[in-house]
Amino acid sequence: MCRRAGRGDSESSILRETRNGAEEFLLHNSSMVMTCSGEGLGLITDGAVHIKHGQVAWVGRSGDIDRSVTANARKIDLGGGLLTPGLIDSHAHPLFAGNRANEFEMRSEGADYLEIAKAGGGINATVGPTRDASFDELLANTLARLKIALRGGTTTMEAKSGYDLRASGEIRLLQVAQAASLAQPIDLMPTLLGAHVLPPEYKDRRDAYVDLVVEKMIPQTATENLADAVDVYCDEGAFTLAETERILRCAKEHGLKVKAHVGQFVDLGGPELIADLGGLSCDHLEQISEAGMQAMARAGVVATMLPGACVQLKMPPPPVAQLRKHGVALALASDLNPGSSNCETLSLPMWLATTHFGMTVAEAWLGVTRHAACALGRNDIGQVSPGHRADLVLWDAEYPGEIPYRFGTTLVNRVWKDGVLCSDLVKHL
Amino acid sequence: MCRRAGRGDSESSILRETRNGAEEFLLHNSSMVMTCSGEGLGLITDGAVHIKHGQVAWVGRSGDIDRSVTANARKIDLGGGLLTPGLIDSHAHPLFAGNRANEFEMRSEGADYLEIAKAGGGINATVGPTRDASFDELLANTLARLKIALRGGTTTMEAKSGYDLRASGEIRLLQVAQAASLAQPIDLMPTLLGAHVLPPEYKDRRDAYVDLVVEKMIPQTATENLADAVDVYCDEGAFTLAETERILRCAKEHGLKVKAHVGQFVDLGGPELIADLGGLSCDHLEQISEAGMQAMARAGVVATMLPGACVQLKMPPPPVAQLRKHGVALALASDLNPGSSNCETLSLPMWLATTHFGMTVAEAWLGVTRHAACALGRNDIGQVSPGHRADLVLWDAEYPGEIPYRFGTTLVNRVWKDGVLCSDLVKHL
Repeated sequence: MCRRAGRGDSESSILRETRNGAEEFLLHNSSMVMTCSGEGLGLITDGAVHIKHGQVAWVGRSGDIDRSVTANARKIDLGGGLLTPGLIDSHAHPLFAGNRANEFEMRSEGADYLEIAKAGGGINATVGPTRDASFDELLANTLARLKIALRGGTTTMEAKSGYDLRASGEIRLLQVAQAASLAQPIDLMPTLLGAHVLPPEYKDRRDAYVDLVVEKMIPQTATENLADAVDVYCDEGAFTLAETERILRCAKEHGLKVKAHVGQFVDLGGPELIADLGGLSCDHLEQISEAGMQAMARAGVVATMLPGACVQLKMPPPPVAQLRKHGVALALASDLNPGSSNCETLSLPMWLATTHFGMTVAEAWLGVTRHAACALGRNDIGQVSPGHRADLVLWDAEYPGEIPYRFGTTLVNRVWKDGVLCSDLVKHL
Repeated sequence: MCRRAGRGDSESSILRETRNGAEEFLLHNSSMVMTCSGEGLGLITDGAVHIKHGQVAWVGRSGDIDRSVTANARKIDLGGGLLTPGLIDSHAHPLFAGNRANEFEMRSEGADYLEIAKAGGGINATVGPTRDASFDELLANTLARLKIALRGGTTTMEAKSGYDLRASGEIRLLQVAQAASLAQPIDLMPTLLGAHVLPPEYKDRRDAYVDLVVEKMIPQTATENLADAVDVYCDEGAFTLAETERILRCAKEHGLKVKAHVGQFVDLGGPELIADLGGLSCDHLEQISEAGMQAMARAGVVATMLPGACVQLKMPPPPVAQLRKHGVALALASDLNPGSSNCETLSLPMWLATTHFGMTVAEAWLGVTRHAACALGRNDIGQVSPGHRADLVLWDAEYPGEIPYRFGTTLVNRVWKDGVLCSDLVKHL
């Protein structure tokens, strides 16, 4: 089982409860359990799940419950509903301060990337407020975002740094992620994204900034166990393929996993590099070559789609049909960030994926469960299957298609994290 | 002032309270009031609104409050926030039973319109369950949808019939709308859409069905004051231009307003017809000619955009830039319906409009306030302006752009309808 780095279970109240043996219970009489195990969505009608020690002990039809095994379990009649794995948001930037609604307005009035940059917009517009914010302000901002995400059914979320761009500041953002993960139910998976964009003070010293990432940020992140992975924004206007390779090879030498933002605007050959490095995922992928897709398929690199940012920036959709044909695993994420996708939840990306992107409902569900787990290098989440964590969502729905189909509201009824009911959730109106 | 037909104020508890003089109060210290009056969005920083008899008595800067006039008003310090008109959803089909998530799944797997129709899908797939549902079931379904809409800031919504397609059944749906309007705060504006699609039992008798609409449905609707307007789905696969003209001329003769679904798939000349008839709006408009746009502009017909359905059905966006150039007023609606857009709220259509459709943030806001009021033939709503109804929304935001920008959640904090706080709203997590 791949465990995330950077935090002892003993620090978390929820995990503490889990370790001491969270309540043993049996959920039964759900209309359908979506296990995301085996073939397709692994649907079980009239399903039941036995939870013990914060993990799934058994899943099957309500009629097949072994009463001798579940004798000590509290029985919870769900009275219908669709029970699924907790959602996994495998590409998210929740660690920032500031507000860029003004850029959104400018873009709607026809301003392009350059005009917005001239008006002080873009990633660096978030860097200033993030540097200026206190640790507590950043933590409060992050917790507010996680509350919305939990209400939408997310139980695990990636948390990229990348809005400070100083060594100490990037480390501080990873520490905010760690604190936020302990303060509420969603499990955060921190990623170092020091190579998000070149900060203004390094604009004529590209190499010096890459030196900073390689010589300071990565070693300290690894030594202090602050992140699971290192990410690079490999695209025109951000980092070159050679810079990306230098940074990610360094990350691997320090025992960290690697991934990259590639082909959002221009395909620089990132997919082939990530495949060579045995990376977790390539994200965005509006632009990608046949060779890139073949390399990803061969190396088992996940393609993470970000439809919110794609639609908001008016980019063409990624080549889903070809990625599917090549057998690349497809994940789907919010890309929560203040510039191109200020969205904490996954049901809307699922709707965009199944409409604008041409993904199937089954692909969208796997994209926020099993394949998202792969994209984070996790094999203990994303499925309702024995040995997996009991991260579960009960939806006011009967069929998988209803979640994207009902796109104007949330159908989440209850969420369990590690077998603990997140009881601070109120039922949506 | 154009008043809606079909219901006496005395029947509604909220309107009764209004008539007896709802509380007089003064909202002050909002970060910004968006009046939607005068030029553009009519923004007032540090704004205040004086409400009396359920209407706006005065709006201006907090510093300009006339204390002698507001002496008796209860003062409510908003402590910031964006205060806007209540949202108006001018194109919605909330009156139906049944679930078509299966069609959504089929479409995501590549099935086209014909394949879905062969599998029993399409509008007629909703007609069966709607005919079979009791009045109370239909009412309960509608109220559940309105609860979500209210939580999203909607205070007025159109309610089209069109999922029964028998004379008695269409009348029954309009009665459901009337009952639903009385049972909760959102004001429903019923529209007869008997000419939604040809029901199966008339498939070889087109003229006989149009006779039924013209000879039974419209006269009874008018006599019993059950709707404000009549709508026709004028497109390939639905009703021809000649049939549309016959139905809508009959509606006008009965004193009802007219509008039409036009150009969702094929432009049959509907915009010119609606302009000739002095209609309220043309809706969808993915396909429209220059001549059609000119006719709409000349006649003051509103163009109602439906981005949810457009994206879900993978249609090209309507020609927003040309409509703007011709000076056509642009409205924006949910198109809440079980087939192409099962969405009760307006903030997501606003996001799609400002990204995928190329509308500005200001156009999107006017599209769900002032222009939506025009599309419903109402001049007493859609603005925060003296004499207008005190339908107001307080948002957890400071700038207009924040609502579409934060597209994964709702920022609604409080809603007032006719000057009455809708206190059953809980604050979102």
